Amino acid sequence: MTEIEIVYKPIGFVESDFKHQNEPEKIRNSESALLLDEIYIPALDGLLRFKHLIVLYHIDRSPGYAPKVHPHGDPNIPERGVLSTRSPCRPNPIGLTVVEVLEISGNRIRVKYLDALDGTPILDIKPYEKLFDSPPE
Amino acid sequence: MTEIEIVYKPIGFVESDFKHQNEPEKIRNSESALLLDEIYIPALDGLLRFKHLIVLYHIDRSPGYAPKVHPHGDPNIPERGVLSTRSPCRPNPIGLTVVEVLEISGNRIRVKYLDALDGTPILDIKPYEKLFDSPPE
Repeated sequence: MTEIEIVYKPIGFVESDFKHQNEPEKIRNSESALLLDEIYIPALDGLLRFKHLIVLYHIDRSPGYAPKVHPHGDPNIPERGVLSTRSPCRPNPIGLTVVEVLEISGNRIRVKYLDALDGTPILDIKPYEKLFDSPPE
Repeated sequence: MTEIEIVYKPIGFVESDFKHQNEPEKIRNSESALLLDEIYIPALDGLLRFKHLIVLYHIDRSPGYAPKVHPHGDPNIPERGVLSTRSPCRPNPIGLTVVEVLEISGNRIRVKYLDALDGTPILDIKPYEKLFDSPPE
């Protein structure tokens, strides 16, 4: 297969109270913020009309690629292919969470339900649209 | 903001009858395939249990970044910030579609509803899980 490299630059970083992935439930139910580079303030115009966003981020603390993993890191669940799980050990460690928007002020978006640690580089923000983002039927 | 570069390699490429984005409705409702690099066959183990997948891909034919765009490319809709739309003109042109799995054979996954052109580099495949991928309430 051809050797193509795709290069992205973070549009911002996550601000969170959590620096380690040891309390997944707590992280997901807490509030955090997306602090974007100020050059993207114009690109946020209109975002307030959406209650939910999809956040894509680079899982910078991924342990690296593993073809097979225990789902949820639970050794009691049999290993299976990493692409059939949400493990961070994927070939390209891109994380995805649907979050609720609490407040937008300038380049700072306060959100709930983001499953990402403090300092995580943000790749993209999309409005959540049921047409594209849930099973079609 | 710090200048970090994030480098990904495609895990495969899209096979589709569509090479140009001029019939969005038709593309989305057609069948296509995800042809993965053979090294990822073990990573696909267990994927068959899911009916729907999230596909992340690099929109390689994006016209490039524009802070403001007309939603759906429709000049009759007022421009707004690109991050409040699904336009390809985003800072990091990552596309996302929820697809239906039709068949998996070896390194080839036949799917329906993928909104990507022939030859599009695939970045990641995730099982669609309602808990993470739809609004929490």
